[in-house]
Amino acid sequence: MSDSLKKAALDYHALPTPGKMSTELTTPAETQEDLSLAYSPGVAEPVREIARDAENAYRYTGKGNLVAVITDGSAVLGLGNLGPLASKPVMEGKSLLFKRFAGIDSVDVEVNTDSAQAFIDTVASIADTYGGINLEDIKAPECFEIEAALIEKCRIPVFHDDQHGTAIVTVAGMLNALEVQGKTIATAKIVCLGAGAAAHACCTLLIKAGAARENIVMLDSKGVIHSGRTGLSPQKQAFAIDTDVRTLDDAIAGADAFLGVSGPNLLAARQLSRMAARPVVFACSNPDPEIDPALAHETRDDVIVATGRSDYPNQVNNVLCFPFLFRGALDVRAVQINDAMKLAAVAALKDLAKQPVPAEVRAAYGGVEIGFGPGYIIPKPTDPRLLAAVAGAVAKAAVDSGVAHLPYPKHYPLQSV
Amino acid sequence: MSDSLKKAALDYHALPTPGKMSTELTTPAETQEDLSLAYSPGVAEPVREIARDAENAYRYTGKGNLVAVITDGSAVLGLGNLGPLASKPVMEGKSLLFKRFAGIDSVDVEVNTDSAQAFIDTVASIADTYGGINLEDIKAPECFEIEAALIEKCRIPVFHDDQHGTAIVTVAGMLNALEVQGKTIATAKIVCLGAGAAAHACCTLLIKAGAARENIVMLDSKGVIHSGRTGLSPQKQAFAIDTDVRTLDDAIAGADAFLGVSGPNLLAARQLSRMAARPVVFACSNPDPEIDPALAHETRDDVIVATGRSDYPNQVNNVLCFPFLFRGALDVRAVQINDAMKLAAVAALKDLAKQPVPAEVRAAYGGVEIGFGPGYIIPKPTDPRLLAAVAGAVAKAAVDSGVAHLPYPKHYPLQSV
Repeated sequence: MSDSLKKAALDYHALPTPGKMSTELTTPAETQEDLSLAYSPGVAEPVREIARDAENAYRYTGKGNLVAVITDGSAVLGLGNLGPLASKPVMEGKSLLFKRFAGIDSVDVEVNTDSAQAFIDTVASIADTYGGINLEDIKAPECFEIEAALIEKCRIPVFHDDQHGTAIVTVAGMLNALEVQGKTIATAKIVCLGAGAAAHACCTLLIKAGAARENIVMLDSKGVIHSGRTGLSPQKQAFAIDTDVRTLDDAIAGADAFLGVSGPNLLAARQLSRMAARPVVFACSNPDPEIDPALAHETRDDVIVATGRSDYPNQVNNVLCFPFLFRGALDVRAVQINDAMKLAAVAALKDLAKQPVPAEVRAAYGGVEIGFGPGYIIPKPTDPRLLAAVAGAVAKAAVDSGVAHLPYPKHYPLQSV
Repeated sequence: MSDSLKKAALDYHALPTPGKMSTELTTPAETQEDLSLAYSPGVAEPVREIARDAENAYRYTGKGNLVAVITDGSAVLGLGNLGPLASKPVMEGKSLLFKRFAGIDSVDVEVNTDSAQAFIDTVASIADTYGGINLEDIKAPECFEIEAALIEKCRIPVFHDDQHGTAIVTVAGMLNALEVQGKTIATAKIVCLGAGAAAHACCTLLIKAGAARENIVMLDSKGVIHSGRTGLSPQKQAFAIDTDVRTLDDAIAGADAFLGVSGPNLLAARQLSRMAARPVVFACSNPDPEIDPALAHETRDDVIVATGRSDYPNQVNNVLCFPFLFRGALDVRAVQINDAMKLAAVAALKDLAKQPVPAEVRAAYGGVEIGFGPGYIIPKPTDPRLLAAVAGAVAKAAVDSGVAHLPYPKHYPLQSV
């Protein structure tokens, strides 16, 4: 990060007041009469109604439009275990994105605990306060246990965005990139460099979207994850395949797609050269990708490159998904976010990229022509059509898969997706 | 509550959207550039600064102006143990009051736990998220243990408003009422009907404000708390005195002041008749006081009556204190709310009631003449001078008593209190 960007970022957070979010009133509270409705004695009436029927919490409180962004600060951005307090700007930023993109009220909660179980107990005990929980920046392998336990304990959607949000956007982009390259997911040979939580979620969802398990070669810091390895975590074991291939050099030969969720500059130009014709490279390490996009394009001109960065085409960015996914889930009061809803979000993102791009979106990107192809496989984060497209598809999938408490909302146009 | 008030209260909570509060952005987030400062990659910079020095959380996040209103739902209003979810409208109402009266961002947290220790552990683990914690609607005796443990564990102000907020406003009003009646706190004989958390806090603070312990007769449901009783809680034991008096009938004879924190209609007219000349009656049971003010004034014309109700003069209302007390504490980054700060709030409220009432405050109360005297012993909740008067006094007391991290803020006029 440049010094001027660092200063701008600090100023942005310090001014006009510390932080980025406030709480505001949505009801009048000027007169004594207003206050007698907002608080004592009037407030006793919604209290009694909720005590009578818990569903009334969705009628008389903000619960139904409130998502908590919760972390233990154990994996803050790419910076590591900096602790809960230091992670607060990230969580507040996530809350800002929920509001900005999907009108969802959102608050951050930083949990200072010394064990996964203590974290689970804490979050479970406060969960009823919220309509949904977005888990954030929790390190592996604890994140798997934590998410599974909280989904089990809570009656509201619990979603670890670093896993599933990343996976949804990545898979949508990957499906489109393969299509542009004239390939199909069912037969594509995919190399996944990295075996953490995001890698696990991406490859799991790739399989649910049609990829063959035996066509995915996953590598951790010790090399290819194969069936001969011992002491693998359950998450790695799920991707251990029978193969003689041991290194990235071996695995990359003839691969159709590379998915990097690892670290900077781990894919060399000579390795890219050995991939199959018309390859796809997702270099998602942030801020420094596994291969510089400029170097990739210099190395071969038939490659499609996606990164996590906004200053290159094809930005794989979680904000394309999580605000809208939660919007759809909240709008039909889904009790969980299931695979049907995740795949519906994938399909919506995939299809939106194929629609003509509205003038205002083009204008926001300097007026350049944008259309489905090697430089535009996924929508732009500021595309205003994302809300109806993704939230509507997720809401429909929740209703159709039987996890919704409410019918499909009339305010969503029925999607073609 | 009338049926029309019930309906108005439900409509108020349901419209225009469920609940009373939202979260909003305080920084621009329109463009890709904005977002790169609010979130990745720019957000990494405040994260690093806070990891380097925890104090920077107050510069780059909303922590310093954020108060959590936290409950276990075990004593919701006067309605009893309705559980955390049903208490949410009350907690959201409290958050609304924090914002409306003192510009403090506030969020509610309802904790679903089965023990005081689990509640303490949960709240302690999320406390760093906030700049202060307002405990609310937690039943006795657990509230004592919970507050003491959290004050010990947290590095931010923790305040059980049902105890100390009530006490501050009650003591301010009581001091003024005694003064109007030509009495002094040092010699006043006080009968306190009720021995719960609010009674304990009120009587404790009365003593700190000058009352003699032996002049306070406290009664619980078994009668007078005297030194011959066994099995008393530590809180009741603190007020056990050597006396032959056993009943309210006995205790009330010749008393200067009655403080009711008990239940409706527990002070009879014949008991009021037996009090000393120029008595003070604080009938704080809500919504139905220990004695109807109209009956009290019919019974004798030398009595000053205060209640918790907004439809009678002399409303003893916590909103006179807690928003401003926290405002002052946050503004000087106090690490706790100590006795000096509580007594400063008492003095500020007491003195403000003696100032001439501005025209806009009179206008809000139908234009009637209001001035220090039997019908005006405490300021009105909507008095705009409360902010500077109480917050300024609390901030000054925090600085003077050595619990503040910051100097006295220039934006407060120095108080005469």
